[in-house]
Amino acid sequence: MNTTTNMSIESLRQEYLKGQITPDALIDSILEKCEGYQDYNIWTHLLSKQEIAPYIDALKNKKPEDYPLWGIPFAIKDNIDLAGIKTTAACPEFAFLPDSSAYVVSKLIEAGAIPIGKTNLDQFATGLNGTRSPYGPVKNSFKPDYISGGSSSGSSVAVALGLVSFSLGTDTAGSGRVPACFNNLVGTKPSIGLLSATGMLPACKSLDCMTIFSLNTDDANTVLSAAEGYDETDAYSRHNVYDNKPRHYGQNAQALKIGIVAKSDLNFFGSKEYEEAYWQSIDKIASNPNIELVEVDFSPFLQAAQLLYQGPWVAERYVAIENMIQTQPDAIHPAVRKIIEPGGSLTATDCFKAQYKLAALKTICDEILNSVDCLLTPTAGRPYTIQELLEEPIQYNNELGYYTNYMNLLDYSAVAFPTTFTSSGFPFGLTLVGNAMEDRKLLSIARRFHGESKLPLGTSDVKMNYPELATVQHSHSIDVMVCG
Amino acid sequence: MNTTTNMSIESLRQEYLKGQITPDALIDSILEKCEGYQDYNIWTHLLSKQEIAPYIDALKNKKPEDYPLWGIPFAIKDNIDLAGIKTTAACPEFAFLPDSSAYVVSKLIEAGAIPIGKTNLDQFATGLNGTRSPYGPVKNSFKPDYISGGSSSGSSVAVALGLVSFSLGTDTAGSGRVPACFNNLVGTKPSIGLLSATGMLPACKSLDCMTIFSLNTDDANTVLSAAEGYDETDAYSRHNVYDNKPRHYGQNAQALKIGIVAKSDLNFFGSKEYEEAYWQSIDKIASNPNIELVEVDFSPFLQAAQLLYQGPWVAERYVAIENMIQTQPDAIHPAVRKIIEPGGSLTATDCFKAQYKLAALKTICDEILNSVDCLLTPTAGRPYTIQELLEEPIQYNNELGYYTNYMNLLDYSAVAFPTTFTSSGFPFGLTLVGNAMEDRKLLSIARRFHGESKLPLGTSDVKMNYPELATVQHSHSIDVMVCG
Repeated sequence: MNTTTNMSIESLRQEYLKGQITPDALIDSILEKCEGYQDYNIWTHLLSKQEIAPYIDALKNKKPEDYPLWGIPFAIKDNIDLAGIKTTAACPEFAFLPDSSAYVVSKLIEAGAIPIGKTNLDQFATGLNGTRSPYGPVKNSFKPDYISGGSSSGSSVAVALGLVSFSLGTDTAGSGRVPACFNNLVGTKPSIGLLSATGMLPACKSLDCMTIFSLNTDDANTVLSAAEGYDETDAYSRHNVYDNKPRHYGQNAQALKIGIVAKSDLNFFGSKEYEEAYWQSIDKIASNPNIELVEVDFSPFLQAAQLLYQGPWVAERYVAIENMIQTQPDAIHPAVRKIIEPGGSLTATDCFKAQYKLAALKTICDEILNSVDCLLTPTAGRPYTIQELLEEPIQYNNELGYYTNYMNLLDYSAVAFPTTFTSSGFPFGLTLVGNAMEDRKLLSIARRFHGESKLPLGTSDVKMNYPELATVQHSHSIDVMVCG
Repeated sequence: MNTTTNMSIESLRQEYLKGQITPDALIDSILEKCEGYQDYNIWTHLLSKQEIAPYIDALKNKKPEDYPLWGIPFAIKDNIDLAGIKTTAACPEFAFLPDSSAYVVSKLIEAGAIPIGKTNLDQFATGLNGTRSPYGPVKNSFKPDYISGGSSSGSSVAVALGLVSFSLGTDTAGSGRVPACFNNLVGTKPSIGLLSATGMLPACKSLDCMTIFSLNTDDANTVLSAAEGYDETDAYSRHNVYDNKPRHYGQNAQALKIGIVAKSDLNFFGSKEYEEAYWQSIDKIASNPNIELVEVDFSPFLQAAQLLYQGPWVAERYVAIENMIQTQPDAIHPAVRKIIEPGGSLTATDCFKAQYKLAALKTICDEILNSVDCLLTPTAGRPYTIQELLEEPIQYNNELGYYTNYMNLLDYSAVAFPTTFTSSGFPFGLTLVGNAMEDRKLLSIARRFHGESKLPLGTSDVKMNYPELATVQHSHSIDVMVCG
């Protein structure tokens, strides 16, 4: 399954600049490679060469030097619009044909990226496992009997298998992080509003984020920089802040005090392999002389997490597909329907009470988070086989969100990154957690730790070697240039 | 009704420092004066001399020089706790006896202020008129047949009549501004979270603010500075920002571009007197050579305003008194019950849909607000007699919120200030509107305009003459001190 092709953006970019490859040839090889993975259920729609052609043609008027994503193939989770291709959200009965691409997709194409296909997902982005789809369960890129993680299942596996250089996912409960963990990828869950949600089907409209799967953090920063920007048509769009701009991504070498989950709050749901991988990863980071790891109380984060599916936010999922659930409930995946349907009968008083509870928890969680430079947690508690998920679709899915569900409710940013493999060869990773608008800080720290791990990229045998970059400092102060 | 005593904080402070008055004598004169206004229904509980005595005694250990509110009498709206005195929220059946004072009340007492009484209000702070109380309608301080405005009715009239130097109100829909307008006062509605809500009965917990009524803006800043501070026990408390600290209050003399309501959106509900007073006030401000007034589209603000009572936020009022409304509905004022009761049957999907609508409107309103230094609107559209309100308790109350209801939904700060009197001698005022955490900027601008108006303080015949202060600039940049 391994391949020697380095699909990282910087590697492809160098090959383009040296004239060693052409977009046309690259796309041909990708489409050919895709044929070998048809039983992985990665795509809801893989674009034909004819459908891709206009994007390749458009590059003829652009110089690779001027466009950071020139000729870079990418995949789009199928709850995000690509003009002229049906958006299904993994529910064919729901499908519609968008006239225009999502705001972010348009920006990526403008920057030179080439869309390859729409990817499979847990229906309506409701799930963290990748089996809740009429297009079939998405297989794990390392162990095909295992789940890919979800809901951005196809988007993660497409990158891990080297079918694209990066992909777009979405994340409400952990959908941009869990699949990164299970497929040896960097999963960037930006601050809410940093990437426009225009053209993205909502799951919980007030909490959703578009996310980026990439082979390394440099690629994540490149894609984020091309994709971000305030969108006045998206009510939840936010202006970026001074010290979270692209140039604040770089070499992190500073002393760090990082919060880790108190032992009593750790849960690996019986997986000795993941528990071992966790401690091995933590010990390696702790061996760094200027990194201080301190245990923090994780229970308020877990309490916030429980509000996501046990609280009124399920009503947002109901609102997102209200017409569908009222007129064609049988067309909805049974597990998804079981989760969303009760959202229609919750009251406004439930809603405000839960928002008060969340506000109180946020005060506590913020204080914990602000006592350290960032938090560092497992991304997922254990891997599951596809068979296990099909047999226990709700319980095991809940377990998958143990370390992720609180994140958007508390308005935090996160980067999931690979740290090691289990003794049986399954990927494991950690997640860095920061305040909103600390995306570049987290990416820079993730770069440092990912760089130290010397892991291969995705399922390839290419080892990641990060080049030297300018050193960045992340603090709450402002750079001042004094002239005179 | 006029009095020659200048009850402003700075004036009393000077008298204290010169030894011309004592707290004991001042309190005696106030309690005597209060007897003359018993039919105004100002108080739910006026403290006895015995109840006030401990606060006077505590001053013996403090030097006036060290305590900015030393010996300054103040009133507390009766939905805010004062230790050992019942909080009724104008519903005797609801009353409870708090062990401790509200966070803000404690800070004010610590700064030397002396509580005089708990003030009457529209029950459960639901109303803008001051007639919805079993303690009787609060009479206007200038024209007793007229409403005081509400819900902070007693708090405003107590300051206007010179019974206290300042008072605490609350503001969800305009309760800290409308009564300021009708009683020739400065009404400061701080940014949500700047004043702690601990010990304040919620109306809409996610939107409520504690507010300050004062005779002038200097006093408002003095009280705000003593009262503000992050309170970790209040989930909605917020940290202040750099350029909104006390020292950013001062002399505003800069060129300003101020947005005023487009003519087509103005509404005086038939009051020629208020319409004339408005244009007279605007013309005076416009005559200032470095003030540019530009008409802005007010309709998105009005659309946001409609969400407050026609949207799901009514459910917050239901939550605040859930036990009461379920067990003793007949104890609730009929108009208040009519408004709050439907809040119990709204759905969570209603709630999220309205929050989406609000988020979209906020995007539009923010753009308008950020195109100018601040907005300037009438505070209320017209005055009403008490009789009129009793006959039309809902419709006229809705009209009272025309220029105020949107404010907290959109997370803005506001300062209402007097500008003139109508031809028949009723007070009129304007409101400055800014983003959250622009409180000092608004207070500084209000100081400038209020100073130019040379109005008397409250109902007294003392004319306001603001002393020279250090000039402040309000911009989005940061002051930098360079040493070397």
